[in-house]
Amino acid sequence: MPLAPWRSSLARALHLNRSLIYARYVQLATVRTDGRPANRTVVFRGFLDSTNQLKFITDDRSEKIEQLTAQPWAEVCWYFPKSREQFRLLGQLRAVGANGPEPLLKARQTQWQDLSDAARLQFAWAAPKQPRAEASAFHPPPPDPIQPLPNFCLLLLDPVQVDHLELRGDPQNRNLYIYNPEQQNWQIEAINP
Amino acid sequence: MPLAPWRSSLARALHLNRSLIYARYVQLATVRTDGRPANRTVVFRGFLDSTNQLKFITDDRSEKIEQLTAQPWAEVCWYFPKSREQFRLLGQLRAVGANGPEPLLKARQTQWQDLSDAARLQFAWAAPKQPRAEASAFHPPPPDPIQPLPNFCLLLLDPVQVDHLELRGDPQNRNLYIYNPEQQNWQIEAINP
Repeated sequence: MPLAPWRSSLARALHLNRSLIYARYVQLATVRTDGRPANRTVVFRGFLDSTNQLKFITDDRSEKIEQLTAQPWAEVCWYFPKSREQFRLLGQLRAVGANGPEPLLKARQTQWQDLSDAARLQFAWAAPKQPRAEASAFHPPPPDPIQPLPNFCLLLLDPVQVDHLELRGDPQNRNLYIYNPEQQNWQIEAINP
Repeated sequence: MPLAPWRSSLARALHLNRSLIYARYVQLATVRTDGRPANRTVVFRGFLDSTNQLKFITDDRSEKIEQLTAQPWAEVCWYFPKSREQFRLLGQLRAVGANGPEPLLKARQTQWQDLSDAARLQFAWAAPKQPRAEASAFHPPPPDPIQPLPNFCLLLLDPVQVDHLELRGDPQNRNLYIYNPEQQNWQIEAINP
């Protein structure tokens, strides 16, 4: 699969903002099972090999999982402070847990191995959003660094629409990229900010 | 109305991050009319006098307006880079346009007057998300600084649930504030991160 045309702009933004660790933090919006939106910060973990899918991670005990089972669409909002630009990436979100799907289990395992010890340890903590557990529940033995814990999920966002706004410039620039599944290509339109 | 108990934590975060202009930028998630989520960056404009409602602004030609007419619930995700903490604020979102509601028209006008010239000018630009207009459409005569343009909207978010996560600390701290409308007070619970 060729690189989507918005990838070069995003790569440039990542480069320009590389001194800020939090320039890799994005906000992920999903829809709750009651129809209300949910929004939280997640860490961008790069792209799945030779695809345009963004990688994130989550715990299968988190509310995201039941939300995306009912409504797989999600939008990531990614603001880059140094270059003053925003990407909005709309697509379907897929969780890859211990049960697969099979072709992605290797990517899930590699992601687990790429985590820091501290990041892996969080998957052995007491269940998120439950009443606060005692301190020992947050100091478990370190999990196996090779085999992921069963609750570890790789999350993949497959964008079909990307809205790129550059606040610099007078006026601002805004480009909308829309994937055309029949032609299997991206259409790009300059739009008003 | 008394200050909600999460207000002091939020005020502290704003203070600790005051050197970063973009610490006042938040991500606002709504639901599109087709049921998919939307997510974009907006600027926090303070609280509506003596309430716990957060102020933002928007253009009534933006897609937010039809989204919140169909689904008024929204969630703001607010990440503070310096203090490494996140607030998720879930509530109903209300737009105050030229037609009111009446008791809020004064707040709308004050907000307009508080904007910079550059911010006001954007409301005289060509309609957002339309095919790119020629350059002159972005250099209109400056609008009246006293009377808002008809398409200017004040947006008010009235939180009923606030999820505050502090990444600093071992383990992290997370508090959930839930508004109880019958008792007209907030319940606070320490939960697992």
